[in-house]
Amino acid sequence: MYDLAIMKSLIECIPNISEGQRDDVVAAVREAAVAAAPGVLILDSTSDRDHNRSVLTFLGDGPSLISAMVAMVGAAIEKIDLRTHKGEHPRLGAVDVIPFVPIRRATQADCVSLARELGEKLASTYGLPVFLYEDAAASDSRKNLADIRRGEFEGLAKKMKDPAWKPDFGPTEPHPSAGATVVGARFPLIAYNINLGTSDIAIADRIAKAIRHISGGFRFVKAMGVRLDQRGIVQVSINMTNYEKTPLHRVFETVRSEAERFGVQVIGSEIVGLIPQAALLASASHFLRLEGDPAPQVLENKLLDMAYKTE
Amino acid sequence: MYDLAIMKSLIECIPNISEGQRDDVVAAVREAAVAAAPGVLILDSTSDRDHNRSVLTFLGDGPSLISAMVAMVGAAIEKIDLRTHKGEHPRLGAVDVIPFVPIRRATQADCVSLARELGEKLASTYGLPVFLYEDAAASDSRKNLADIRRGEFEGLAKKMKDPAWKPDFGPTEPHPSAGATVVGARFPLIAYNINLGTSDIAIADRIAKAIRHISGGFRFVKAMGVRLDQRGIVQVSINMTNYEKTPLHRVFETVRSEAERFGVQVIGSEIVGLIPQAALLASASHFLRLEGDPAPQVLENKLLDMAYKTE
Repeated sequence: MYDLAIMKSLIECIPNISEGQRDDVVAAVREAAVAAAPGVLILDSTSDRDHNRSVLTFLGDGPSLISAMVAMVGAAIEKIDLRTHKGEHPRLGAVDVIPFVPIRRATQADCVSLARELGEKLASTYGLPVFLYEDAAASDSRKNLADIRRGEFEGLAKKMKDPAWKPDFGPTEPHPSAGATVVGARFPLIAYNINLGTSDIAIADRIAKAIRHISGGFRFVKAMGVRLDQRGIVQVSINMTNYEKTPLHRVFETVRSEAERFGVQVIGSEIVGLIPQAALLASASHFLRLEGDPAPQVLENKLLDMAYKTE
Repeated sequence: MYDLAIMKSLIECIPNISEGQRDDVVAAVREAAVAAAPGVLILDSTSDRDHNRSVLTFLGDGPSLISAMVAMVGAAIEKIDLRTHKGEHPRLGAVDVIPFVPIRRATQADCVSLARELGEKLASTYGLPVFLYEDAAASDSRKNLADIRRGEFEGLAKKMKDPAWKPDFGPTEPHPSAGATVVGARFPLIAYNINLGTSDIAIADRIAKAIRHISGGFRFVKAMGVRLDQRGIVQVSINMTNYEKTPLHRVFETVRSEAERFGVQVIGSEIVGLIPQAALLASASHFLRLEGDPAPQVLENKLLDMAYKTE
């Protein structure tokens, strides 16, 4: 049995590190996290060689994750030197970004507190500049990761000379080899794709435009049209950044209605990666017109509550 | 942390005992089960005074449930005498019926084996006649609980003189005070009600008829019309006996279509009691047209797998 049993909260922490080619380095960085906090679990570890970047998914309670991340950043600083790092993905630091995501018995506010606590510790322990982003950001101009990362590691020293880019914690110039780290809190992301019964990419593009925030669509939707060449169809590829406020079923129904306008059918949809149970229960609830939230009645949730009981 | 952690399978066992008025007796019977197998959990215990009957819901692996049930039946035999028992609900024994239901890492076949093993043990330990029912039944004529129970405790001695009602295990006459026990395996039941925007009970009745098996509807649906006087509406009250073969969304859509024929809307629906996650995911999948089973992608299921890992 795992230490999870005594965890009061379950929070996901998904550090993105700037190493996706040297597997031994990724393993060492990963193991540094777990060695420092044995209660922390690794849910996933995915390395991309072209991006030269790895995405690690940890699960644990707040205090364990803080210990794990402090140790992990130490190991990453020791083994990763951004001065010689090359990869397709934009990055600012050896550990580029660390978001906290609430899963069970934890709120977004808890994750914001964790982000601040971790930022402070990374700065004081390693002399690393830390920027807070998303829900942990100190101001609106700091919310967007792309804005913080613009200029990348190579442009960071110059960027940080501008008082507007003073970090939230730590020195006002980059760590020589590890750059800076962006820490924050965000809602779980859902990657959701809807497949259309046509090979016409223009239709997928138009529907993507109709649903995405930037062009007038839903507040928490990013979308684009994608060709699925092997299947000879097109897809509306969607990132849902807040499934509570912009639920799957609403986006699905809108895509269906927009597709019908072109005489095109939705022939299927797919979830990529993990999805919180609540996102799917909300869709079942919507279509079945359930009068209450079914989550407390789901048998598996009783098992989960028993397994992760703290008393 | 609970012993569940080391359970290879998770099976529900829902003994119905013929005592719903003396709370101390119900508690003693319940505790006898847990004392004999500390790994077994009590999910629920509901007593009905008019029925003079209690429904206990246990969760555990096969061997633990067998130990728990053998001990529980012993306590029930000691404390419940059917010769003086009165209640509205039909019953055959002090412990009337014990179904096993597969939940995780267990099949219907596992539950059939458990039912047989328990039947044999109850017969040899207590000289109790045991009938197997539902999926554990030795023949089709023994599947239906109502058929086995017809005549009740009071008619049991006479009924058992008929070779057709020789029990599957144990003596060919009733236990003097405890009657007989019916043991079996069944699929999880879902109680699902659909509310209609009308006060006309005739419409609910007609729709119930349209969907229930007995009058030409779905194979695994029992249904009737019910008045909800306080809300001034009617309801199609449904028991779904196999949500895999007759899923919620199919029944919902049929009720919706039948209601529309009368110009009536479905204004809501509700699940009563517990529901397996898979039943709701299937509905989400149907309406969102998901191409694969989303269960392995549900984050909570990863947590559950980790909590109940056996290695």
